[in-house]
Amino acid sequence: MTKIAILGYGNLGRGVECAIKQNDDMELAYVFTRRDPSSVKVLTDGVKVVSVNDILDHKDEIDVLILCGGSATDLPKQTPEYAKYFNVIDSFDTHAKIPEHFANVDKSAKEGNHIALISVGWDPGMFSLNRVYANSILSDGADYTFWGRGVSQGHSDAIRRIDGVLDARQYTCPVESAVESVRRGEQPELTTRQKHTRECYVVAAEGADKARIEKEIKEMPNYFADYDTTVTFISQEELDKNHKGIPHGGSVIRSGKTGWNLENNHVIEYSLKLDSNPEFTSSVLIAYARAAMRMRAEGMTGCKTVLDVPPAFLSKLSGEELRAHML
Amino acid sequence: MTKIAILGYGNLGRGVECAIKQNDDMELAYVFTRRDPSSVKVLTDGVKVVSVNDILDHKDEIDVLILCGGSATDLPKQTPEYAKYFNVIDSFDTHAKIPEHFANVDKSAKEGNHIALISVGWDPGMFSLNRVYANSILSDGADYTFWGRGVSQGHSDAIRRIDGVLDARQYTCPVESAVESVRRGEQPELTTRQKHTRECYVVAAEGADKARIEKEIKEMPNYFADYDTTVTFISQEELDKNHKGIPHGGSVIRSGKTGWNLENNHVIEYSLKLDSNPEFTSSVLIAYARAAMRMRAEGMTGCKTVLDVPPAFLSKLSGEELRAHML
Repeated sequence: MTKIAILGYGNLGRGVECAIKQNDDMELAYVFTRRDPSSVKVLTDGVKVVSVNDILDHKDEIDVLILCGGSATDLPKQTPEYAKYFNVIDSFDTHAKIPEHFANVDKSAKEGNHIALISVGWDPGMFSLNRVYANSILSDGADYTFWGRGVSQGHSDAIRRIDGVLDARQYTCPVESAVESVRRGEQPELTTRQKHTRECYVVAAEGADKARIEKEIKEMPNYFADYDTTVTFISQEELDKNHKGIPHGGSVIRSGKTGWNLENNHVIEYSLKLDSNPEFTSSVLIAYARAAMRMRAEGMTGCKTVLDVPPAFLSKLSGEELRAHML
Repeated sequence: MTKIAILGYGNLGRGVECAIKQNDDMELAYVFTRRDPSSVKVLTDGVKVVSVNDILDHKDEIDVLILCGGSATDLPKQTPEYAKYFNVIDSFDTHAKIPEHFANVDKSAKEGNHIALISVGWDPGMFSLNRVYANSILSDGADYTFWGRGVSQGHSDAIRRIDGVLDARQYTCPVESAVESVRRGEQPELTTRQKHTRECYVVAAEGADKARIEKEIKEMPNYFADYDTTVTFISQEELDKNHKGIPHGGSVIRSGKTGWNLENNHVIEYSLKLDSNPEFTSSVLIAYARAAMRMRAEGMTGCKTVLDVPPAFLSKLSGEELRAHML
């Protein structure tokens, strides 16, 4: 049994708890929180919720600590800090800052003689793996990543910050004609606008100027200005009823050529269609918790990513079973 | 530069030669053949074609030997034999015999202090990887593999053995409605007939009894009897013109549930659309030749499969480059 602890009990932490329930070689040992522990109710019978201030008291009762904080401010501090004391896994997803995060975590994981897996999830994570596999196989080609249809929390938050907005949900949607062109191996050159659209469902305060809100959304730099954006005003009831889920997904596609004169075309596609973004990410985290134990057992320490992990390490099955049934 | 040698210069061997041309860290050192070497013309300038009888004379000039023979009779002998003297890779694809093949190859690779990668390609190979990843992530779910639309050499050969048949091409086709149901996460139970159809293009000898040929095809046990099979008689000219390619592909799909009460559904799909089955397989072989060198450099010996190989080992890029650009 691998003893897992969760730090941070939000959507992701709860997802990890659910994923542990589905894997009989894992058990949830502790939930650590920055909140008052008595205010946090978890789903699993008998699991203790403990203040993060006391986490080091439980050092020897935990095989892998899963860090379920955010990438903006939590993980850049937490992962290097706790890699000194625990084998850790995070889902750090600020792509541009991965090299810096890696260096910080690697240093402290090596000092602590632990293993740390960072940027585990689906993007970065499973999408990254598929980019590397497809690029290694098809040397001459082009890469495409499409996201959605799915909820972008960052874009939803950006809308909520507009004056007169009570609530909002933003869906990122791939442009189907672009996806189809890529799937046909046409290797199109696509602008930002040609790849994704943005659908916004907005609850406005009574009497708010909807035209001004719509304009502010559509012209918001970085978030919306470069996209074809639609804004639909709905009631809070409708938002709660139809837009409560956190679905996401997308496709990584590589199209490339082979042959003496590059006469043959190939398309490799990896696609996800997810009802719950945090629960899927959590399921990936738990598979890599298993891998972390295997890597540690082989004497590895320091920071690693999904690119460093032999696929067999993720599975409950032995090498023999995998070769007999899955190869 | 990794020095590659090819044993067996058919479609696969020629594909490996083309893939080497696309990878500037690889060079083709030798082509070994069972035929008279003077009868074999290769595409790469200056590469020597040598009789397989003299292969051991070149032991020290080769980093990785890629075995391009067939799985029925060639590889079960060749891979264990040559793993004594070389780092080897094969694309052994008789799924049921992989454990036996693995054991034989492992023994001789360890004796010879070499690394041997078996069953490298797309199925087994990339499809296997995706089965393992998806199963490790989604514990509660169902697996589906669809093949095609693509040419099955085995089925084409079976038709050619029928009396009165001059030539034939058989395409395996997934049943689109079944694929769509799986993609919607419906987890249908599917019979063999519900998953694939078989399209046969047949050139009959003049005066042959076409009705009898069609009946023999459709009733052939194992190959066609369990499928909805269509037979179309065409001329040799038409077959040569429209059915000369060796396309293939397919999808590995896992659909599974997460959540405290398994309330959320997820679909993971990996799909290939290949103009040339042997050239794509060859491209996978070359990526794993790179990985074999990395594994050997780390001191690993014995038989391995794609499930044992860290994804980063397939790439020309360094760990730092991968983290900065691909993760």
